[in-house]
Amino acid sequence: MNHKINWLLATFLMTGIYCLSQSDEIIIKDFEPASSNQPGREYPMVNSQGRVRTQIFAPDANYVQIDIGGEKYDLVKDEEGMWTGESAPQDVGFHYYQLNIDGASVPDPGSLLFFGACRWGSGIEIPSNDQDMFAVKDVPHGHVHEILFPSESTRTSRRAFVYTPPGYEKATSKRYPVLYLQHGYCENETSWPNQGHANLIMDNLIAEGKAKPFLIVMTYGMTNEIEYGGLRDFDIKPFQTVLVDELIPYIDTHYRTLANQENRAMAGLSMGGFETRLITLNRPDLFSYYGLFSGGIYQPEEIKEHEQLKLVFISCGSKERPEGVKYAVSELKNAGYNAVSYISEGTAHEFHTWRRSLYQFARLLFK
Amino acid sequence: MNHKINWLLATFLMTGIYCLSQSDEIIIKDFEPASSNQPGREYPMVNSQGRVRTQIFAPDANYVQIDIGGEKYDLVKDEEGMWTGESAPQDVGFHYYQLNIDGASVPDPGSLLFFGACRWGSGIEIPSNDQDMFAVKDVPHGHVHEILFPSESTRTSRRAFVYTPPGYEKATSKRYPVLYLQHGYCENETSWPNQGHANLIMDNLIAEGKAKPFLIVMTYGMTNEIEYGGLRDFDIKPFQTVLVDELIPYIDTHYRTLANQENRAMAGLSMGGFETRLITLNRPDLFSYYGLFSGGIYQPEEIKEHEQLKLVFISCGSKERPEGVKYAVSELKNAGYNAVSYISEGTAHEFHTWRRSLYQFARLLFK
Repeated sequence: MNHKINWLLATFLMTGIYCLSQSDEIIIKDFEPASSNQPGREYPMVNSQGRVRTQIFAPDANYVQIDIGGEKYDLVKDEEGMWTGESAPQDVGFHYYQLNIDGASVPDPGSLLFFGACRWGSGIEIPSNDQDMFAVKDVPHGHVHEILFPSESTRTSRRAFVYTPPGYEKATSKRYPVLYLQHGYCENETSWPNQGHANLIMDNLIAEGKAKPFLIVMTYGMTNEIEYGGLRDFDIKPFQTVLVDELIPYIDTHYRTLANQENRAMAGLSMGGFETRLITLNRPDLFSYYGLFSGGIYQPEEIKEHEQLKLVFISCGSKERPEGVKYAVSELKNAGYNAVSYISEGTAHEFHTWRRSLYQFARLLFK
Repeated sequence: MNHKINWLLATFLMTGIYCLSQSDEIIIKDFEPASSNQPGREYPMVNSQGRVRTQIFAPDANYVQIDIGGEKYDLVKDEEGMWTGESAPQDVGFHYYQLNIDGASVPDPGSLLFFGACRWGSGIEIPSNDQDMFAVKDVPHGHVHEILFPSESTRTSRRAFVYTPPGYEKATSKRYPVLYLQHGYCENETSWPNQGHANLIMDNLIAEGKAKPFLIVMTYGMTNEIEYGGLRDFDIKPFQTVLVDELIPYIDTHYRTLANQENRAMAGLSMGGFETRLITLNRPDLFSYYGLFSGGIYQPEEIKEHEQLKLVFISCGSKERPEGVKYAVSELKNAGYNAVSYISEGTAHEFHTWRRSLYQFARLLFK
């Protein structure tokens, strides 16, 4: 870090494009509007250090802060009543955040809204050197269907999103494998298509010939009712019933699927990995590909009767516990399983880890 | 109004479920969480008078207001720092609103977010006696597809939403008519499926046998680049190119449409009506059903060469200019056209007017 700062000093000291914050840290002034902004909004901005700068007009406020990554950073007011300020550098990728105006936690009106942290709120994209994987390119695009499927067990019409790959509509006699993909705790069924960009990741992989075309089904894992810390008592049954007895049959009758174990995968991030693990252990007859993204591990003895199992994929960020993931996968390999580990460099328990995990996992599916 | 207040007084005076606001108005205290709230949020609430009550914790704020319907209403702080307050009665249906915290305009963290007023922001649903038309019922549900279609003219992949009616996936040899449906100024392609509930309106109409199944295609009308007040100089060409030369061909090759004028309708609300009017006048060969919802009128001489025209539908809220709509439709009828007017009772230039307009218009299409 010191080395980096020295290099930055050497580079920028004479150009004038720097300033010193209250803590005497260098702030490089190459701020640009974030890609996660509302249409036409200049703020929030991000710079090459991963700092977030935002701005809000609040002439009568006593203080305004940006609340990101577990820290609050003060904004400074000018004579017109406009508040501006920056956060410390953030990891590459996507982060939830909010503003604090005189003690009120509110979304930043400049940001698009994302469901996470149990609420629709602000999010910010810090540029990464692999963000090309979810760029909107001039390639054939799949569709994302919002569906309402009947659920007897919960007496509701439940929502899911279904990604259909490019060409699905025209290839009317072709049938496709399916990945069931779960969000994390306090997220919902919009999180993978929205901040996860699952559809764009697939469009790009398919266009490059790196993944087979398959459907992705994303529904609500009913995780938000769980009291924080209550995972130990978590009962998977209600969600397992919805997924296995209600959603899978709906998908298999409404979409041209290959409706068998060999062509069915399940994966999830964090809490969704926890759910994936429990459901695949309870029902070894349903899925052939398992993916846990920052969401636990399998031990060889747990899956010893899973005869149709073709792949176990376990991942996390390098700022989580990569040793645990690597060790678990080496144990699975030693026991003869086709197991793959993936460590997302420089990221923690956040969505960029999981986008990269999907990008890696998707390449291995149904082959 | 006085009569109503007297009746309310007589009914509630002895029950104690009333209070007097600063302006000595009766506030009935039957507040309930709004249906437009974020999951699990108690506030904002609405009461039977159509008042909006909201609450936010802002211990260090100098003032907090709810900003709705062009007025700001003060909230009052309690000793813990919680601010609470109510608006005046609002019309039934959907309204955009925001909070004002010490001069900062921000979304209410309790509300879901909707795109309107050129931004993603808060919205509130005031219960109406006909909200059943967009209730999620135990009926077959269509799907809403998010698509990205290639647009050479704008050199982008552009987004649209496509409603497919229940049964579309299974009836693999059936072809369907299509309605192209436009949002208003400073709204976008999410506005009709989100706050408009176009999909649920159709699901319910179809389940009751009141509408034929058809597709609805909703895309961005590129209106937000227009400076406010600049409609006089509005050039329809860029959007007409996207719609006619790019989107319609994409839909007709990716969906099982009846790809002819007889089975194609166009409608829009407000600015989207203005666009509908211009495009149908420029291209009398494309659509057979025209709908203007709070979005202008046709004069008989304008459409005299529209030989395949089957229906002109013109609507607005009773709080807009219903006489103008009724007069225009009577002139069209006198000239021999199949013209229908619809006035939404008790509503203004807002989404409930347009939901009701779609509900009426859809029943008349493709018959």
